[in-house]
Amino acid sequence: MTTLSVRGRLTTAAFALFDERGYEHSTVDDIAERAGVGRTTFFRAFPSKDDVILPDHDVVLGAVKARLAASTRETALVAVSEAARLVLLHYLNEGDLARSRYKLTSSVPALRHREAASVQQYQRVFREFIHGWMGGGPETGLNAELMATSVVTAHNYVLRRWLRGLTEHPEAEFDVAMAQVIELFAQVKPDHSGQGQASLVIVRTTRQLDSVLPALRKILE
Amino acid sequence: MTTLSVRGRLTTAAFALFDERGYEHSTVDDIAERAGVGRTTFFRAFPSKDDVILPDHDVVLGAVKARLAASTRETALVAVSEAARLVLLHYLNEGDLARSRYKLTSSVPALRHREAASVQQYQRVFREFIHGWMGGGPETGLNAELMATSVVTAHNYVLRRWLRGLTEHPEAEFDVAMAQVIELFAQVKPDHSGQGQASLVIVRTTRQLDSVLPALRKILE
Repeated sequence: MTTLSVRGRLTTAAFALFDERGYEHSTVDDIAERAGVGRTTFFRAFPSKDDVILPDHDVVLGAVKARLAASTRETALVAVSEAARLVLLHYLNEGDLARSRYKLTSSVPALRHREAASVQQYQRVFREFIHGWMGGGPETGLNAELMATSVVTAHNYVLRRWLRGLTEHPEAEFDVAMAQVIELFAQVKPDHSGQGQASLVIVRTTRQLDSVLPALRKILE
Repeated sequence: MTTLSVRGRLTTAAFALFDERGYEHSTVDDIAERAGVGRTTFFRAFPSKDDVILPDHDVVLGAVKARLAASTRETALVAVSEAARLVLLHYLNEGDLARSRYKLTSSVPALRHREAASVQQYQRVFREFIHGWMGGGPETGLNAELMATSVVTAHNYVLRRWLRGLTEHPEAEFDVAMAQVIELFAQVKPDHSGQGQASLVIVRTTRQLDSVLPALRKILE
């Protein structure tokens, strides 16, 4: 019996019990008994009752880190996109298990909190990678964080659409969403002009943008 | 004795106990006793032990919703920025309490999970508002979500810098961070090309504003 199969059995048992008796009324002992193992085995596999809903979290997070590490400066954005794709594919492969989790996290606060924390862990891994790619200095700290959060948000947006039965083509939608994120951040011009302080000018117009932009640029350059 | 003061006392008691005995070894009964109230009073004030670390969450979330609601189509982005600013000011006013919470959420997983969930609640409020502002259609769903997440990320970025003692000017840094977010999303072209639609033009210039604004107005009117 491998560790993985014990984890899988504990997760299946927990999901079934949460569904039958409710989360509050399912103890770690109940879950271990249903899975045919002891309490000690449960705690060797998971730190707490809540962690049982994300049995592969560490494995998938590790795969994301490995995919990011296997990149160069030139292929960094491809690596980001493919690493996020790995997470999506994991959920798609889970199938009904992913759908059961979605039902549980939608109704049980403690499990929703646990899942929110796992989202933050992904954000952190992407943030550290992207920040390194951007040079790692304080002037790119916020931008790296915004991009990392956007990558994870785009992933979750498509995942949620699939979990809700709103799309049958999650992989194709993911590619479009990720392209949108990368395009968004590609537009950010590097800000080290050194020339004086830059100001942000925000104005509203009802004129056609195409007709005014050339004149605008001339004034502001 | 107002409800708010009971909440405040319970929070102070909980933070002190978590610090003295650790989170795991502080029960709801311990917290209630230290605050000089009964267990029933605790559960009237908070749904669970974890919620005690964010005593004003509902009040601040309500203030954010109210600020967003008090806006028009033209002032939506100002409202978003000022609503996020309300949250920052709340933490700044908390002072040591905010710093104690940061210490706790950094070391206690259950509290970190609880806080991650509160971040998601802010994101949701901003997302619904921004999506409505963008027209509410499916084609702007992802963009609204990306912008909402970015607003909250920028807020948290500055808040964390202040909590870590890395800045003494969090409000000024917040304004710069929020301008960066708004600039990022302003570059996304609006999708309604209809005549008479107002467009938001955001540009960056190193010229003196006084010298360019009259010319700008002339072009855009």
